[in-house]
Order: sequence, then structure tokens, then C-alpha cells
Amino acid sequence: MQISILRLGHRLPRDERITTHVCLVARAFGASEICYSGQHDNSLESSVLGIVKAWGGNFTITYEKNHIKLIKRYKEDGFVIVHLTMYGMPLPEKVKEIKNSKNKILVIVGAEKVEREVYELADFNISVTSQPHSEVAALAITLDRIVEGKELTREFDNRFIGEIKLEPNPLGKTINKKDQV
Amino acid sequence: MQISILRLGHRLPRDERITTHVCLVARAFGASEICYSGQHDNSLESSVLGIVKAWGGNFTITYEKNHIKLIKRYKEDGFVIVHLTMYGMPLPEKVKEIKNSKNKILVIVGAEKVEREVYELADFNISVTSQPHSEVAALAITLDRIVEGKELTREFDNRFIGEIKLEPNPLGKTINKKDQV
Repeated sequence: MQISILRLGHRLPRDERITTHVCLVARAFGASEICYSGQHDNSLESSVLGIVKAWGGNFTITYEKNHIKLIKRYKEDGFVIVHLTMYGMPLPEKVKEIKNSKNKILVIVGAEKVEREVYELADFNISVTSQPHSEVAALAITLDRIVEGKELTREFDNRFIGEIKLEPNPLGKTINKKDQV
Repeated sequence: MQISILRLGHRLPRDERITTHVCLVARAFGASEICYSGQHDNSLESSVLGIVKAWGGNFTITYEKNHIKLIKRYKEDGFVIVHLTMYGMPLPEKVKEIKNSKNKILVIVGAEKVEREVYELADFNISVTSQPHSEVAALAITLDRIVEGKELTREFDNRFIGEIKLEPNPLGKTINKKDQV
């Protein structure tokens, strides 16, 4: 299963940290890439790539000015398009259908205002609760259901190992650096 | 099951939106209150209470200067103390034990730097993946596991109904205002 994320309408400085969290959740929960639209942000890109270098995995970040064009391109490339919106259909009702439909998924994480066209291009408009909360949480829960909780115990592929690896510790911190791994 | 959240070390303006997301996830995923330490923030409190008024539920937010004192008080009051940290033990290994231990849970959501004493006061130091991502996502996944996914379909108690209620919609937005509910 290939999972890509599209983050819409990144605004500076307002979304600086939220978009960073969206990117890191994408990486930690099994997506292989994130694209973002809105304002171009070099600092976001370098902080995400810094995490990838230090912590491993194979994850990329790219900027796309025209998100409608990007969604259409992914649709043509055989991705099922899942748009997260609190107005959509409950995730538990649709998750099986989403997972069974195609082996490539584009999950769209919205911004303040998402135009009608995104709702129409999406194969699924999906809500994670019908309450206002957080695109970070909505993405985490959606990916958790798509990868069936596997993100909670997975190890990154040895080909893409990072410089840092944590070992679970009931009380303190166990940090392995690359030369010790 | 009574669920309370403690958000540590709120800093302005840096954490403005992240802490708001933490609060809204707490509310949407079944907690009944959030306490926060760090900087006092009237604007955070009023925006959270505004959401509660509009969207319903019974949820409170309070400020606590001394979070160590608060943790000790909750411990004495019979809460099991769960501290979320990427250095901790994997959630799937411990969630059953957490749920079976007591019927009151305090989930602590960390800040940049959490002192050793918090790790020691916690009954469980728990990681949601051993990767860096987001306290918003970590809280969402933890509460999801504690309430067994029920947040995704629950309706708020009729006694605490809000002014706005969404109906799931596969394509557009269905917003019911109070006089129409």
C-alpha cells in the first residue's frame, strides 16, 4: 500500500507548527511522501528532511502550487482520493471500502477553507468524528486505520535507517546513536 | 471511565495552536477536562469554551501553575497517571493494563522538556510510536485506544447539546443549527 499526503493551504507563520506536525505524523504513520500547497516554506522542508535524516525512513516533501492539478494527476495515476473533512462520512463506515478500492491512496488534509472542487474530486469525503478538533489528529487516526495499527510497532526499513533509534523504556530514555546501533 | 488531560508547559505564542488542538482532541475523543501548565492564556481558555458552547458536551479547561502538585493530587484521588513520551513503552503493550487498572485516567501530554519527576510520578510512560511526531496525534491515538474507537461515532449527551451539529455528508456540508435540531 502506497500512501501519499496532500496538505492544503499552508500559511506562514500561522501554520508553521501544525503543518510540521502533519508532516511528521505522515512519516511516522506510514506515508511515503507529503506534498503541500499554499505558501512555499523552505524552513518546513528542511526541518522535515532533517528529521528523516536523523530518524530514518524513506520520506519526501514537495511543494505544489496548484493542488487541483496535483489531485487530478494522482487520480489519473490510480490513487484513491480521500479528503478529510469534519463534514464527511464517518471513517469506520468507509475505511474497508477505501482499503479495498486501490493500493495507492492520496489523503488530503484540509485548510481553513477548502473549495467545492476538492470535495468533488475526492472519491471519499471522510470525517474523523463530526466535531472540530485537529487535522493532525484526523490524519493520525485515518492512517492508523489504514495501516491497521502497524505504525505503533513498526521499525524503519534497514535500507533507510537513521542516526537515532529509541528503545522503549518504562521510566527513562534509551537513545541509540548510529555508531552504537 | 473518567478521562482528564494535563498539558504541560504551554508557551505563547509558540504553542497557541498546538495547545488548542490538544484541547479540542481531548474534548472530541472523550475526555471531560483539560488542565494546562506553563503560561496562563485567557485567549486559549475562551476559544475552547466557545467551542464547547457551540458544539456541546461537558468539558472544562483550567490552568494550574504547579503541575507536579496537580499530578500528585490526581494520584491521591485515585487516577492512573499516563505520561505520553516517545521514550516510553509502546501503547499496544500497555493499553489493556491501563484500562483495567482504575476507572479514572490522567493523560499527561508533554512539552519540549519534561522533568524526570513526571516520569517517576507516572504509573505508565507510554509511547505512540518511538518516532518524533506530534503530541496532538499521540493524544488522539491514546484516547482512541482507551475508548475503543467509540469517539468516531458518539453523539454528545442530550443534556449538553450545543448549537451546531453536523450530519455526515458524502459530498457537501450538512450543518444543523440549534433551532433546527
